[in-house]
Amino acid sequence: MPHISLGNEAPGIVSLFVYRPETAKPLSDLAEVLLRGPNSLSRGERELIGAYVSTLNGCSFCGDSHAAFAAAQLPEGMALVDQVRTDPAGAAVSPKLAALLPIAAAVQRGGKNVREEDVAAARKAGATDVEIHDTVLIAAAFCLYNRYVDGLATTLPDDPAGYAEMAELIVNVGYGAASGQPVAQNA
Amino acid sequence: MPHISLGNEAPGIVSLFVYRPETAKPLSDLAEVLLRGPNSLSRGERELIGAYVSTLNGCSFCGDSHAAFAAAQLPEGMALVDQVRTDPAGAAVSPKLAALLPIAAAVQRGGKNVREEDVAAARKAGATDVEIHDTVLIAAAFCLYNRYVDGLATTLPDDPAGYAEMAELIVNVGYGAASGQPVAQNA
Repeated sequence: MPHISLGNEAPGIVSLFVYRPETAKPLSDLAEVLLRGPNSLSRGERELIGAYVSTLNGCSFCGDSHAAFAAAQLPEGMALVDQVRTDPAGAAVSPKLAALLPIAAAVQRGGKNVREEDVAAARKAGATDVEIHDTVLIAAAFCLYNRYVDGLATTLPDDPAGYAEMAELIVNVGYGAASGQPVAQNA
Repeated sequence: MPHISLGNEAPGIVSLFVYRPETAKPLSDLAEVLLRGPNSLSRGERELIGAYVSTLNGCSFCGDSHAAFAAAQLPEGMALVDQVRTDPAGAAVSPKLAALLPIAAAVQRGGKNVREEDVAAARKAGATDVEIHDTVLIAAAFCLYNRYVDGLATTLPDDPAGYAEMAELIVNVGYGAASGQPVAQNA
């Protein structure tokens, strides 16, 4: 049961977006530009970073929902997502993503944990400065979303199939659908 | 030296806002609504929560800048801010804020650390559900900002007086000034 009366039965962050539309707007705008805006990292790769960080933070709602969003947008589907969430070092991702995931994991532990050599390794694997920047910001953003969702003890969907339904909405419409508000269009 | 070439000499998060205006907009909109929007917690109290969480995260830029923003908007000024940053349990804050600070500290460690009894204590001290919500979200947001600033190894101002100058801008104009973009007006 949530720590406060949210006045709605939606699960996870959706219940918080309905409760407080003032903060839902910038939070969903941020997700839209970071995870769906024009980028040399694919939408699937960016969602995968989000699902991975959420898993490290132990946040079931964000981990399972963004896993579904990643799987829906990656050619390798849920098999790869599951690999990254359980054994990131052994997962069959591109060399570039393999070098970006440790940066995301370092940010999850705390910003100062990102080392020069992590950044050098990512660059050597072909990552651009913007991709390194966006990896850091995606990881940092999920440290917000995860704490927001769990800090208020929001609920999980009754049926895990709910995540696939959310994925359809996010993939086809975007994060504005989650907040019920128009967001900057990046499609 | 920052991990990537930011193309500008601004310190801390300002350099990241200049580098990536697409994400600067929702990030500064979030700060504006959370820290300056209409609220039963004063702007000074909300900045104080942000400075406190930044201190717990070991983020010098955010800790010192939001300490300056809090001091500029609290009748007790920097003396109280310093107390909260060094000895929160002994600080001369209101009973309500004294009960909200442990919730912020729990969120800093991880969302699941917020306990029923923390929330009950805050409510007993007069905190509303929205105030509890906003405390959780402010703490979560600073876990983003702190990781973003330190994860890319941004620089500190050459002169600590820079924080007081920033405070004047934030207090009088708002977070749009930090991103160089118009933000939702809450003044």
